[in-house]
Amino acid sequence: MKHVLSSLGEARLLDRIYARLKRQHLPALVLGPGDDAGLLKVAPGKILVATHDDLAEGAHFETRWTDFRRLGRKLLRVNLSDLAAMGDVKPLAVLATAAFPASAPERWFRDFLDGLSADCRLFKTALLGGNLVRSSRLFFGLTALGEANPSGILRRSGAKPGDLLYGVGPLGLAGRGLAALRRRAKDPAGVTAFWEPEPQFRAARLLARSRLATALIDNSDGLSRSAWEIARASGTSFRLDLSHAPVAGNPDAGEDYGLLFSVPPPRLARLKAVLPAAYPLGAVSKRGARALSAHGGYDPFAAKAPHAL
Amino acid sequence: MKHVLSSLGEARLLDRIYARLKRQHLPALVLGPGDDAGLLKVAPGKILVATHDDLAEGAHFETRWTDFRRLGRKLLRVNLSDLAAMGDVKPLAVLATAAFPASAPERWFRDFLDGLSADCRLFKTALLGGNLVRSSRLFFGLTALGEANPSGILRRSGAKPGDLLYGVGPLGLAGRGLAALRRRAKDPAGVTAFWEPEPQFRAARLLARSRLATALIDNSDGLSRSAWEIARASGTSFRLDLSHAPVAGNPDAGEDYGLLFSVPPPRLARLKAVLPAAYPLGAVSKRGARALSAHGGYDPFAAKAPHAL
Repeated sequence: MKHVLSSLGEARLLDRIYARLKRQHLPALVLGPGDDAGLLKVAPGKILVATHDDLAEGAHFETRWTDFRRLGRKLLRVNLSDLAAMGDVKPLAVLATAAFPASAPERWFRDFLDGLSADCRLFKTALLGGNLVRSSRLFFGLTALGEANPSGILRRSGAKPGDLLYGVGPLGLAGRGLAALRRRAKDPAGVTAFWEPEPQFRAARLLARSRLATALIDNSDGLSRSAWEIARASGTSFRLDLSHAPVAGNPDAGEDYGLLFSVPPPRLARLKAVLPAAYPLGAVSKRGARALSAHGGYDPFAAKAPHAL
Repeated sequence: MKHVLSSLGEARLLDRIYARLKRQHLPALVLGPGDDAGLLKVAPGKILVATHDDLAEGAHFETRWTDFRRLGRKLLRVNLSDLAAMGDVKPLAVLATAAFPASAPERWFRDFLDGLSADCRLFKTALLGGNLVRSSRLFFGLTALGEANPSGILRRSGAKPGDLLYGVGPLGLAGRGLAALRRRAKDPAGVTAFWEPEPQFRAARLLARSRLATALIDNSDGLSRSAWEIARASGTSFRLDLSHAPVAGNPDAGEDYGLLFSVPPPRLARLKAVLPAAYPLGAVSKRGARALSAHGGYDPFAAKAPHAL
């Protein structure tokens, strides 16, 4: 297992990328890799927000239980979720890529295009371009572009010791749905959460405009991993307490696409008034404090990823 | 072969995408799928130019003859070529995705990152984000973002009957290099053309600023296919004449990343003064005239793509 990617794991591979790119100098670059999306200044007072995520056969889906119309919708939504996780962001346009074997049923392609274009309309975004490629394994990728004012951006890095951790959106529901899909069991709510996650644009906009949150991330890689990413970026630690959270399944299974954010205690009453759906998840603590949750969550390169197919 | 993607071919699949997206309404959308890149208005007088292209194992490369450092460079360059093929475009930033098997040698990842980041510096662009994913087949994708003034854009659709077709850059050299790589033969010029194509920013800028070309495309899918794309977009036909072109191999093999463009005859003297490296390739003719070149070029879904691996 030495010198192969699985012996390193995703976190260390990403660290290498970030280390390599730390010295990027470009006047327009506001924020490079390492948050939910990158930021580029495109005009005075206007930030382009850009993110890319993929759905790969074997890692994110298997053809035997995949509805390609729903996969097309999910491909858009997981990327919109990353835009929303940057704060008050308005989606602009997307570029999509699809890799199919030459022997793939035409219906897969048609269904994928149907689902993707239906959700582009629903979320008022347009397909700006993309690519179609032949591959023996199915692979779908999407780049989402949005725009924001600099003041509307919420990064992962602003959490302070003493802040409270809160969340919105499902916890463990998508993982439960994936498990049902794989054993062909019925779980309509779980399966819908897995295929059609709701990007949390409204909640993120409220958090950014009302200056309620100090740090924001989506929980797509699992709750513990997301808390750990906020802690790492903010130079803090954290403890999780799920006793008041709407846990529907393993919250570290990933794919939920809810939001996790930190709130200073004096802003708590306002949070409850503005976003009553938010639920408590724990607190931010000083760096060095032991994180009261193992670093779990989804690692595609680990030997035992929680929801590895 | 009925009802599978290979029975349709890429051109008909793309037509279905374009037909589906014809009714996209979005105030900021200037140009959707169908040209070398999409166009989005991001500020008064400022156009965001965006494109996405991929390199897939089995379709574009095989691990047994791939230098991943060079693959990282190619991934950037093929996308920059699509930006250049829109006219006077300045690259801004890119998002990259890489799919590796968990058993892939760590060196492949390191080399890929080395090559990609070296060429990001060379072309003064920054990595804005991306994704890392596990897949049993290697797959690399990149979205390139650039900016332009509306007056600097050259589309595929402006060719008029009577215009002359000209080109810059290699013709058939990359296909020759690919053939050498596959049989482990020596062809340094061909292999470099295959792995490190030169995006034609300078030529495209001259063509746009001097208002020399009426239509512009890159020839990455082969010369005949590119001429056919200009003809289709412009409502014209064409004839190719390669007797004065620097043909180094099969010009329809694809992967050359030179430019093909149309020039009205009165501008020919100025073209020769401004861009002496340009060479004649034929002429644009009226719609309905028989295209004097079979519709060749690269079709990843055709049973016999010219350079199918």
